[in-house]
Amino acid sequence: MIGESFFSKNSKAALKKSPPGEWMPTIPDVCIRLNSGYPAPELVPHKELKEAVVRLLEEEQDLPLHYIGSPRLKKLRDQIRGRMAERSMVVSDEELLITSGACQGIDLIARIFLDEEAVVAIEAPTYMEALEIFQNYTNHFISIPVDEHGIKIDLLEKVLVDRKRDGQAMPRFLYTIPTFHNPTGTTLSKERREHLLALASTYDFLIVEDDAYGELAFHESPETLKAMDKEGRVLYVGSLSKIVAPGMRIGWVAGAKEFISAFGWMKKDLDHPFAHASMAAFLENTNFKLRLHTLSDTYKAKSSVMLSALEEYMPESATWFVPEGGYFVWIRIPGVDTSKMLAEAAAKGVAYIPGKHFFLDHSEGREYLRLSFSYVEEKEVIEGVKRLSRVLGTGPSSQ
Amino acid sequence: MIGESFFSKNSKAALKKSPPGEWMPTIPDVCIRLNSGYPAPELVPHKELKEAVVRLLEEEQDLPLHYIGSPRLKKLRDQIRGRMAERSMVVSDEELLITSGACQGIDLIARIFLDEEAVVAIEAPTYMEALEIFQNYTNHFISIPVDEHGIKIDLLEKVLVDRKRDGQAMPRFLYTIPTFHNPTGTTLSKERREHLLALASTYDFLIVEDDAYGELAFHESPETLKAMDKEGRVLYVGSLSKIVAPGMRIGWVAGAKEFISAFGWMKKDLDHPFAHASMAAFLENTNFKLRLHTLSDTYKAKSSVMLSALEEYMPESATWFVPEGGYFVWIRIPGVDTSKMLAEAAAKGVAYIPGKHFFLDHSEGREYLRLSFSYVEEKEVIEGVKRLSRVLGTGPSSQ
Repeated sequence: MIGESFFSKNSKAALKKSPPGEWMPTIPDVCIRLNSGYPAPELVPHKELKEAVVRLLEEEQDLPLHYIGSPRLKKLRDQIRGRMAERSMVVSDEELLITSGACQGIDLIARIFLDEEAVVAIEAPTYMEALEIFQNYTNHFISIPVDEHGIKIDLLEKVLVDRKRDGQAMPRFLYTIPTFHNPTGTTLSKERREHLLALASTYDFLIVEDDAYGELAFHESPETLKAMDKEGRVLYVGSLSKIVAPGMRIGWVAGAKEFISAFGWMKKDLDHPFAHASMAAFLENTNFKLRLHTLSDTYKAKSSVMLSALEEYMPESATWFVPEGGYFVWIRIPGVDTSKMLAEAAAKGVAYIPGKHFFLDHSEGREYLRLSFSYVEEKEVIEGVKRLSRVLGTGPSSQ
Repeated sequence: MIGESFFSKNSKAALKKSPPGEWMPTIPDVCIRLNSGYPAPELVPHKELKEAVVRLLEEEQDLPLHYIGSPRLKKLRDQIRGRMAERSMVVSDEELLITSGACQGIDLIARIFLDEEAVVAIEAPTYMEALEIFQNYTNHFISIPVDEHGIKIDLLEKVLVDRKRDGQAMPRFLYTIPTFHNPTGTTLSKERREHLLALASTYDFLIVEDDAYGELAFHESPETLKAMDKEGRVLYVGSLSKIVAPGMRIGWVAGAKEFISAFGWMKKDLDHPFAHASMAAFLENTNFKLRLHTLSDTYKAKSSVMLSALEEYMPESATWFVPEGGYFVWIRIPGVDTSKMLAEAAAKGVAYIPGKHFFLDHSEGREYLRLSFSYVEEKEVIEGVKRLSRVLGTGPSSQ
């Protein structure tokens, strides 16, 4: 009797599309978690964060535990703006909103720009949480495939040209992860970046640039879309989850101040002074350049270990992109339904994310899977790939 | 060129109603802040929280800094359920969602239940953040006055009877702060609580019970609506902001599991493991009963100091409710426009919140103001009231 009848039109529609709880199967604890897009445990700076919190509370006492008052709240904003400036993205204080991770930033963007008539352009495949978020607001998507150089910009242009000719709505925005893409690990080429910005200008849409992995380059990070943007069309979504610690829940959105002001208005969890001030205290004592070096070296080594194991154990027919940064390898195994295979893989002690979860249409991506080399130790990366290959019938026999 | 044209219909409407940034005047730092609904600085347990974080990170290392993994995340849920159970509110794990403060809980409730056709019943006056949140979703309000025994239930009933007779929509929910109300400090009587639950049943609406101040009783906390609810109509919103520290951003919603599941789906900032595990570590070493005693004694003493000062210095015509808990005294000064008076008060070194901000219709509440006795020291409470009385021309002359 008390139930769905109270739900609003919008939430009824959203919940119908994506029933809560229907997602991945439970992964047994004993599995090697090649599914987890987590940072390596040894790179999570728990000692340094403990020291930072002690210093913070000894210096500021109750200040960071009130709603406002800690001078480190402003400091974190300056630190984030400083990091962006080092990457040629100069934003004013009014152009920055700190969010609870990238997810909240993406959700605020969706809340402000989307309604049930809005069209969103996305990459296929793309970050599954973003897909879920957008589907809470609209059913209208333009889905553009990704290849080894990122989103296929010619296909996007063709769709836009056709829609224009046919009088159809332009996308409100394109959501893209141009650098060390989740799940494919690919990076949008310089030429395509320029082409994309030109298209956004011609066809008058915004670009949401999710750069959660952007600083995790094995060699060099490319220039961001935000840095190249001359028109204020790029909303940049950043995160400290992958380079410091996801549990701190610190991300941000940078963009035109009218947009940032609107996001701030809709963000009703208020600010998080304790988490923000703790992060500021951590960053003020951290050599970030050195930290990024360590992260890059570690993940580069792990990715090499995974790629070697894949070469050695995967079936001949399997293919993958070689990542130049980030956390992931995206693998295609022709003729295999990776979603059906997961139960057997889990039983054999290895977990991954089936490709279909990264597509709007779950009938796509069936032959694909995402492996993460970030979280588990190197020898487990190898063992995980071995176990996977046994499920595929190509690996070394079990000892 | 890049601007509002990209906003969705809903956000355009919401931002038009409540332009970001238009709110209170800036209060100079030198003011005695009788406007601030903050806990007393000396009651914010910064030493204990520091100790808790040290213990947490030494015991769990990187675990509370990942997305999931800390055993204390479940522990915090159990601690909150335990505190609710002590107050005769037994809820299962599926009936509880931890939120970033009460505000996020209220926003999730609004997101799930409200659309532009939905009607919301509110108290007049009420919590200003809640007003802002609801106005982001709908324009349809039923606004019922509050007297010294809480919401005027007979008026609510009359409105419901009339609407029923005229075929108008019933409210989706009533938002109420029945205990130590913000801003009036009043508490809903037992009889009215029963009457309210009966009305909700008869007219088929939900009740959102905001209990942020409920445990801050000077004598005894009344039974909550949630504890009295037999039909699952009450969505209980709790918070640790007023009894531990607002900067930790920990609140919760408890209610029917279908609702909680939907809120969880829409909550896109993910969980906050570091804050949650830190709070669990704090609570596991805290004698909460003793803590509540200390809080009650302190705030009771501060409220007495404020009430005595009001008796001594306010004009004869001024009236107020005597609070039995919470943080606030709500004062009426006939013939005075408290909003216009604020600039002068601030210049004379005292700040308060003008009454109109607590009403949907800002033409109401002009003769009222809210004073908070929670945040400033006792001698500043007295000095603040003195300064206010000088502005009103009734106080002792300046020394």
